[in-house]
Amino acid sequence: MKPYYHTVQYYETDKMGITHHSNYIRWLEEARVDFLSQIGCGYDVMEQEGISSPVLEISCKYHKSSTFADVIEITTKITEFKGVRMTVSYELRNTKDNSLICTAESKHCFLNKELKPFNLRSTPYIDILLNTMKDN
Amino acid sequence: MKPYYHTVQYYETDKMGITHHSNYIRWLEEARVDFLSQIGCGYDVMEQEGISSPVLEISCKYHKSSTFADVIEITTKITEFKGVRMTVSYELRNTKDNSLICTAESKHCFLNKELKPFNLRSTPYIDILLNTMKDN
Amino acid sequence: MKPYYHTVQYYETDKMGITHHSNYIRWLEEARVDFLSQIGCGYDVMEQEGISSPVLEISCKYHKSSTFADVIEITTKITEFKGVRMTVSYELRNTKDNSLICTAESKHCFLNKELKPFNLRSTPYIDILLNTMKDN
Amino acid sequence: MKPYYHTVQYYETDKMGITHHSNYIRWLEEARVDFLSQIGCGYDVMEQEGISSPVLEISCKYHKSSTFADVIEITTKITEFKGVRMTVSYELRNTKDNSLICTAESKHCFLNKELKPFNLRSTPYIDILLNTMKDN
Repeated sequence: MKPYYHTVQYYETDKMGITHHSNYIRWLEEARVDFLSQIGCGYDVMEQEGISSPVLEISCKYHKSSTFADVIEITTKITEFKGVRMTVSYELRNTKDNSLICTAESKHCFLNKELKPFNLRSTPYIDILLNTMKDN
Repeated sequence: MKPYYHTVQYYETDKMGITHHSNYIRWLEEARVDFLSQIGCGYDVMEQEGISSPVLEISCKYHKSSTFADVIEITTKITEFKGVRMTVSYELRNTKDNSLICTAESKHCFLNKELKPFNLRSTPYIDILLNTMKDN
Repeated sequence: MKPYYHTVQYYETDKMGITHHSNYIRWLEEARVDFLSQIGCGYDVMEQEGISSPVLEISCKYHKSSTFADVIEITTKITEFKGVRMTVSYELRNTKDNSLICTAESKHCFLNKELKPFNLRSTPYIDILLNTMKDN
Repeated sequence: MKPYYHTVQYYETDKMGITHHSNYIRWLEEARVDFLSQIGCGYDVMEQEGISSPVLEISCKYHKSSTFADVIEITTKITEFKGVRMTVSYELRNTKDNSLICTAESKHCFLNKELKPFNLRSTPYIDILLNTMKDN
């Protein structure tokens, strides 16, 4: 899977001169959207079938700061998947020196149109998602 | 009408140490929402009737910078109103010295549930909105 | 200590019709800034002494969604404090029905002007921060 | 000059299901930063010389909405330049059907390290900026 790249924008910095920590949470979503799209489980595809995957939990460790114009490489992996729940892990590195910026994790469930828990076991997505975990 | 107050948040500053200029556009919306709510034309009321008022144009002059923890007073006025269109004007001042930070204007139309132009002339809102203009 | 209140803004919602999860991370900062200011350890005071307290870790559990115009009450507590490190805990409730929206935690260190770890033990802040923990 | 492309993120949509209008102002900055970098007047280069170019005015006309996953092409031009002041114009189009989303303009001045108005006439940037205007 190709990593995702985010260029730090001026409006994402704060008066300490570095990227404001809240923005990394947004980039996790950008990387997740890109990852799921690459494997054929894009938001558009899922949405058409009425499946959504809200965030249940987020955790993020900030190892090093980044700043304006830095290009951040985000590697995304599904590290746990059980039909109705999924854990996604992320590693963020600054491409200028490959230094580790952040490690993070997000937990999700799947819901159907009625916003009831939905088991992907009955869909073709189950195999796609399980397959990505073999590479880990 | 009471002015609206916004306290500048840390995440709204940028690496120049001042409020990023894009945030003022968001505060205009905060002030407009508050103003319309005060006069009984709140988003909730309008939404119940299926009326929305998208932004057609925004213009903003930045006179002076502000920064973290500053409390900004926003005065909102309807300066033009013709059934299907409305112009709202804003003045933003820093409460710490009453200095002028921004002047701005937003133009809106009204749409019904089918997203077709909607004339407020047939609703009680017409008088409410026209009345606020008498104070100008 | 008085809780902090945040009114959900239109620009904080997403196309699912609810508050985007990244915004809660920003509100934690708003609540923390307010809490520290209430106890006399405001960012301005600390900054004058050259002390900053970057975020090392964030974790957030999303229990229930919120949406535009909801008023969220945020209760903030220092739950761990050891001279150079501090853990802050947060509980977010929707004031309309007192339902639990989020629980969260942020971990911080203290740095001096040279961005070296700084022990608050040598400052009057140590007692202030420890005192707030007695109420827990 | 190559146009700039911005993919609409989920967190940039609002509960109307479309891109929140404030985000376009941020993309103007993204496009401007990219444009200036392409011609050799990047923020990094300017900053090294102590030159900044704050925003004095912004105006934006919203022609059509966009939404999550749309790819927006932004064409940037310098339309006025007089040593200490510059006007930049932007055209935003949705790449999916080439429809016009926004037209916008930002006005800037140049400041030196002492935040005093600075005339680029004494720098090599003057010719670079003037040259881009010949293509218009």
